[in-house]
Amino acid sequence: MTEEYTYERTPWRNDQWYTSFWNFDQFAQDLFHFADKIQIHDVTLRDGEQQSRVALTKDQKIAIAEKLSDVGIHRIEAGMPAVSRDDYEAIEEMLKRNLKSDIYCFSRCMVSDAKLAADLGVKGVVMEIPANELLIKYGYRWETEKAIQAAVEATRYAHDRGLYVVLFLIDFSRADYGYATRFIDAVNEQGYFDALTCVDTMGALSPLGSYCMVRAMKERYAGKKIEFHSHDDFGMGSANTVMAAVAGADVLHTSVAAMGERAGNTSYEDVVMTLKMMFNQDVGIDISKLCETAGFVTDLAHSPCRANRGIIGPVISEMEAGLPIGWFERIKHVDPLILFPYRFPITGHKDITYTIGKGSGAPTIKFYLEEMGLPTDNDDFVKELNVAVKDMSMMMTHSLSVPQFRDLAKKIYKKYV
Amino acid sequence: MTEEYTYERTPWRNDQWYTSFWNFDQFAQDLFHFADKIQIHDVTLRDGEQQSRVALTKDQKIAIAEKLSDVGIHRIEAGMPAVSRDDYEAIEEMLKRNLKSDIYCFSRCMVSDAKLAADLGVKGVVMEIPANELLIKYGYRWETEKAIQAAVEATRYAHDRGLYVVLFLIDFSRADYGYATRFIDAVNEQGYFDALTCVDTMGALSPLGSYCMVRAMKERYAGKKIEFHSHDDFGMGSANTVMAAVAGADVLHTSVAAMGERAGNTSYEDVVMTLKMMFNQDVGIDISKLCETAGFVTDLAHSPCRANRGIIGPVISEMEAGLPIGWFERIKHVDPLILFPYRFPITGHKDITYTIGKGSGAPTIKFYLEEMGLPTDNDDFVKELNVAVKDMSMMMTHSLSVPQFRDLAKKIYKKYV
Repeated sequence: MTEEYTYERTPWRNDQWYTSFWNFDQFAQDLFHFADKIQIHDVTLRDGEQQSRVALTKDQKIAIAEKLSDVGIHRIEAGMPAVSRDDYEAIEEMLKRNLKSDIYCFSRCMVSDAKLAADLGVKGVVMEIPANELLIKYGYRWETEKAIQAAVEATRYAHDRGLYVVLFLIDFSRADYGYATRFIDAVNEQGYFDALTCVDTMGALSPLGSYCMVRAMKERYAGKKIEFHSHDDFGMGSANTVMAAVAGADVLHTSVAAMGERAGNTSYEDVVMTLKMMFNQDVGIDISKLCETAGFVTDLAHSPCRANRGIIGPVISEMEAGLPIGWFERIKHVDPLILFPYRFPITGHKDITYTIGKGSGAPTIKFYLEEMGLPTDNDDFVKELNVAVKDMSMMMTHSLSVPQFRDLAKKIYKKYV
Repeated sequence: MTEEYTYERTPWRNDQWYTSFWNFDQFAQDLFHFADKIQIHDVTLRDGEQQSRVALTKDQKIAIAEKLSDVGIHRIEAGMPAVSRDDYEAIEEMLKRNLKSDIYCFSRCMVSDAKLAADLGVKGVVMEIPANELLIKYGYRWETEKAIQAAVEATRYAHDRGLYVVLFLIDFSRADYGYATRFIDAVNEQGYFDALTCVDTMGALSPLGSYCMVRAMKERYAGKKIEFHSHDDFGMGSANTVMAAVAGADVLHTSVAAMGERAGNTSYEDVVMTLKMMFNQDVGIDISKLCETAGFVTDLAHSPCRANRGIIGPVISEMEAGLPIGWFERIKHVDPLILFPYRFPITGHKDITYTIGKGSGAPTIKFYLEEMGLPTDNDDFVKELNVAVKDMSMMMTHSLSVPQFRDLAKKIYKKYV
């Protein structure tokens, strides 16, 4: 940066990112109840793999677990060993590899499921049972009391076997509040849980609803940890999870690149970056591996994200329009963050490049000519090439690749030598 | 639905959707400042087309405008006629077609740009100028006073020519508050604007920051309309726009499928559905055309969304795991919304289907056998086929297509006849 220009360093602005002071408006800050230590609980290998059409092999799951451990994910929900032999074997292997992440199982509220988890030697169990009376009645064909009794017994057993017990009430966010709290109270009094999950199975919460639900549970079950599990049916998953953290949630359930059943779970990339760069909350993830990890997982799942997906999308650091490129050329030595929210390489993303297409102007043409060793000072040549680039781009209704550009440049250059 | 089961109809629950009562928690409701009439301003043809690698022809732009009009978008930002001859001609043609949407131009704060827009006969202009002193100084190489003067003159001229004037300060959300408000005050006093846009060019706002910014501008410029323009760099775009509406924003800038520069703008699909199904705010969009419109636009842009993208992703209504399919089979006659957030066909999406893959159980196998006219009552056959489906899915690390399943079923059935 040039010496003439300095700025005050704040939680929203430094040499790595530049977000907005509005995020620290007093009204917003008065709502901050962040937990001292926020943990990321990754569900890619369980809820993520339930995404329609996705199938991961045992070896792929182990490889993904290693990546998640490398990136600093605190807890990995590694599968349902009671239901899947593959998951059982994958977890067995993960436990041998001494990952930095704690391994958790997903489990039904059944003593046999908890026994399997304990025998395997995992750290904890996420124990699921519907919070929705109708699902118990019609889906499970159980009486309400039977469900409560099952949860009491299974959680108590899991706790006695030394497992960390996370109570996970399916569809909690829509369930009748009286029924759900009676259920949780019974487990709290007769069974056991270390943490209660605010589960938004249907992606039915708004950001404000997420905040309210977590606040209510923090108050009602003070002393217990509160977790938050979301889905992205309305595109609110990431924001809901951030708002849950604002409300004091201790553990956030997320997946890589929002993989998950139906419209997916919540992208930990969004959550971790937002907490860090908009709320000054560093949850301890190695963000330099975000892009690499996302590419690794989405390739295995044959499930690419949109090209311009925030943080991990391949095109987000590409500039095409001539006007902003002109600004960038003049401003990048002052502070490139005047035109970007953060420095892309800090997530392992490629840095700024100029796309050759319909929007390109002379700076882009000259940049790539220089790379080729062709002259950039012949205005007629540059102009003719620029027009040819625009025409070709419109003909293809897409930008040009660098080889396509070089081909075109060489052809037109022949007229000028 | 069966007669034995009834429920109270509420803003969060009816026969079309079922979200969460937490969204109407008193704490949340106390923050509701919704405008009487919320409008959607689509930026797909301007900011959307600035997405790297995307190039739309004039005819494609006109076709997209017709789709946007059909879906009920209130305002279309159709391009920058002063910069692009294609945009000029596309807008000329759109105006001839009597679309239901109002046509707006994007324009620099220059009298000549405003003149072109007025001569074309559009309804209004979105007039851009940086709110960021540094961008003015280094990018534009202008003095601050020159920028203010340009904005005063151009907005005044546009207003005098009968255009609806939307003041659009680039990077307003990060700009120095003193500078930005001095700028806006000057335009308010000496120039003119009908509406002020809270512009989050870098996707730098959190949901709470968005709320605070819009509230502040509503109060400071009472009597003026407030618009909100967001980007999705941290995956917060949709939630930010929803929170802007909660705070009272009158007009929301969005695009189809979050197309847009860098990490895209904000998906109107998310915003419209969330406002309708979580906040009881129907903005008047024909949601039955959401999926068709998204497919049309993303095809033209060669820019598909992720397969499990909320609302418009192709796989969101697909079930694969055997357990929930078992529940669904038992519960769908009671109320299918016990397992889904809304009925997928209301957005033009395909209804629930069962994916044939690793997670499939007997119900899925029997469903597709029945379609083929093969027997479903031979347990050994069903079981062998189910195992074969799982094996093939793991071999492909992907689900089976229906033809692949039929092939496999026929082959195995031969052993049972």
